[in-house]
Amino acid sequence: LNAEAMVEAQKHVDNLTKPLGALGRLEETLVRLAGITGKVVPSIDRKAVVVFCGDHGVTEEGVSAYPPEVTGLMIRNFCDGKAAVNAFARRFGAEVRVVDVGSRLTELPAGTLDRKVRAGTANMAKGPAMRREEAVQAIRVGLELALETKEKGFQLVAVGEMGIGNTTAATAVSASLTGTPIEELVGRGTGINDVSLKMKGEVIRHSLDVNRPDPSDPVDVLTKVGGLELAAMTGFILGAAAERLPMVIDGVISTASALAAIRLAPGSRDYLFASHLSEEPAHRVLLEKLGLHPLIHAGMRLGEGSGAVLCFPLFDGAVAAAREMATFADLGL
Amino acid sequence: LNAEAMVEAQKHVDNLTKPLGALGRLEETLVRLAGITGKVVPSIDRKAVVVFCGDHGVTEEGVSAYPPEVTGLMIRNFCDGKAAVNAFARRFGAEVRVVDVGSRLTELPAGTLDRKVRAGTANMAKGPAMRREEAVQAIRVGLELALETKEKGFQLVAVGEMGIGNTTAATAVSASLTGTPIEELVGRGTGINDVSLKMKGEVIRHSLDVNRPDPSDPVDVLTKVGGLELAAMTGFILGAAAERLPMVIDGVISTASALAAIRLAPGSRDYLFASHLSEEPAHRVLLEKLGLHPLIHAGMRLGEGSGAVLCFPLFDGAVAAAREMATFADLGL
Repeated sequence: LNAEAMVEAQKHVDNLTKPLGALGRLEETLVRLAGITGKVVPSIDRKAVVVFCGDHGVTEEGVSAYPPEVTGLMIRNFCDGKAAVNAFARRFGAEVRVVDVGSRLTELPAGTLDRKVRAGTANMAKGPAMRREEAVQAIRVGLELALETKEKGFQLVAVGEMGIGNTTAATAVSASLTGTPIEELVGRGTGINDVSLKMKGEVIRHSLDVNRPDPSDPVDVLTKVGGLELAAMTGFILGAAAERLPMVIDGVISTASALAAIRLAPGSRDYLFASHLSEEPAHRVLLEKLGLHPLIHAGMRLGEGSGAVLCFPLFDGAVAAAREMATFADLGL
Repeated sequence: LNAEAMVEAQKHVDNLTKPLGALGRLEETLVRLAGITGKVVPSIDRKAVVVFCGDHGVTEEGVSAYPPEVTGLMIRNFCDGKAAVNAFARRFGAEVRVVDVGSRLTELPAGTLDRKVRAGTANMAKGPAMRREEAVQAIRVGLELALETKEKGFQLVAVGEMGIGNTTAATAVSASLTGTPIEELVGRGTGINDVSLKMKGEVIRHSLDVNRPDPSDPVDVLTKVGGLELAAMTGFILGAAAERLPMVIDGVISTASALAAIRLAPGSRDYLFASHLSEEPAHRVLLEKLGLHPLIHAGMRLGEGSGAVLCFPLFDGAVAAAREMATFADLGL
């Protein structure tokens, strides 16, 4: 981060016509954006949300309220511009990029970026979700997309995902990386009932027992109990940080990928912003580990990057304040 | 509220391509907006923020980090379009209306609505802040402005304020109306130090002892330990509810006014939406009493309606989702 720009940005924010610190986390956001971009008042007009999609073999254990085919249907829906993330992105001036890194779809709808590593993971309750080379390949997909996103001129990017079964994978990754008991992490995902919730916890426990991922090796964790879209998001976060591109993470799945990224390269945390606090219990635990504070508390649990895109206007508001407010000196004080 | 429209709105939201309830409080917002407007997908394009301004005699006790003259300077700043609320309002498509209901300014800048009831309150540490007739007159100012705002065609309105010293008044009102101990409510306002914070608590305690407001009579509370802008906001909230105009409240001061309004007319709560959770400890207590859940947690403590306007795009996002998302039937599910 550019320390000089951060000092200048803090000075600028402190001179604006408001009590010191009165814009709270918006001020922290501005100062960190200055550190990333090197500009006291950054330009974040060009925004994108990248939605990484993948299927999960663990769905055969009955961990989701929806059948796995919904992953493919939603990929189509994103391309048709008809999902929540599309509505938010249109409203808030962001482009939606849909990346198939591991769905079971054989024919991709126009508009999907085809970066498929394999057609869904294996059932992690029976063995590793994928091979290590596949996880590495998915990470590379993310890295390359980050570079591409930067080259296209985007200035602020949201990270999202779609994959029926992926809260199960994300929770397993979270349990492994943080050492938190599964019962404190497991949530209802798309909306399962009490019986399924209990079973989901057992599937996660069993998957960790069967695979014994090494918590000190995030790639091993992503390989054994993760997912293709999770690994790709980890790569994307690493790549965007390397490209000095500020990123907004979404719910529990992208945040699990972010923790894996930060374990691989702690410095990438500087480029990450939390957006919302989801209903999934693991999300709060992950955000605490990352030391990030979500601006929106709306009890959402949708994924797709929807919460991250919903946060874009708050960033725009902060930048508008930094650009347009008078200083106390202007008022003669 | 229109119960039929709410049922229809819930049905519509449940059919959209997302897990049931996955948009969390955005869904509750949509359903309540349907109840208010009678429309399954409401139109909220025309937005305004009404900023009520007043001065406080209690500033002579040294309860604020800023001199009372800042109230007048900020009124000018609002009219010049140079405060945080202006920057947010421009970005998010809202009109700013500045209402002087009780500042000490003798000449008002062009653009201010002159509805002055008196030039600042008296020092509540020495006696009542105003006379009951004055509080009633300020409430009437708010009622009339609500009617005017509705007649101008605004569809969603934020309530804000400016008045050096008014967290002291709002905290006294909160202590009286909720019966919560002062030490659990008092905060740093514009940013006072520990010594001043302790003294501010004592000034509030003393003001309540001297004036003994009747908690069962909100007008008495506003008269004795409130403020002109607080009373006007109470009137505005009552008036907007009567006009079926959805309102977004801001920080601790507008929320104290809202609690007074709800005590006078419990039904007005249906038209109120929380926006953000401020740093002032009393804010959380007041929101709990109102049963409202703020969408933004940014540690802001600025007032002006800034947090409420910052919430406007989240409402717009919710409406965009309701209007533009496909249903599962569209996907063939």
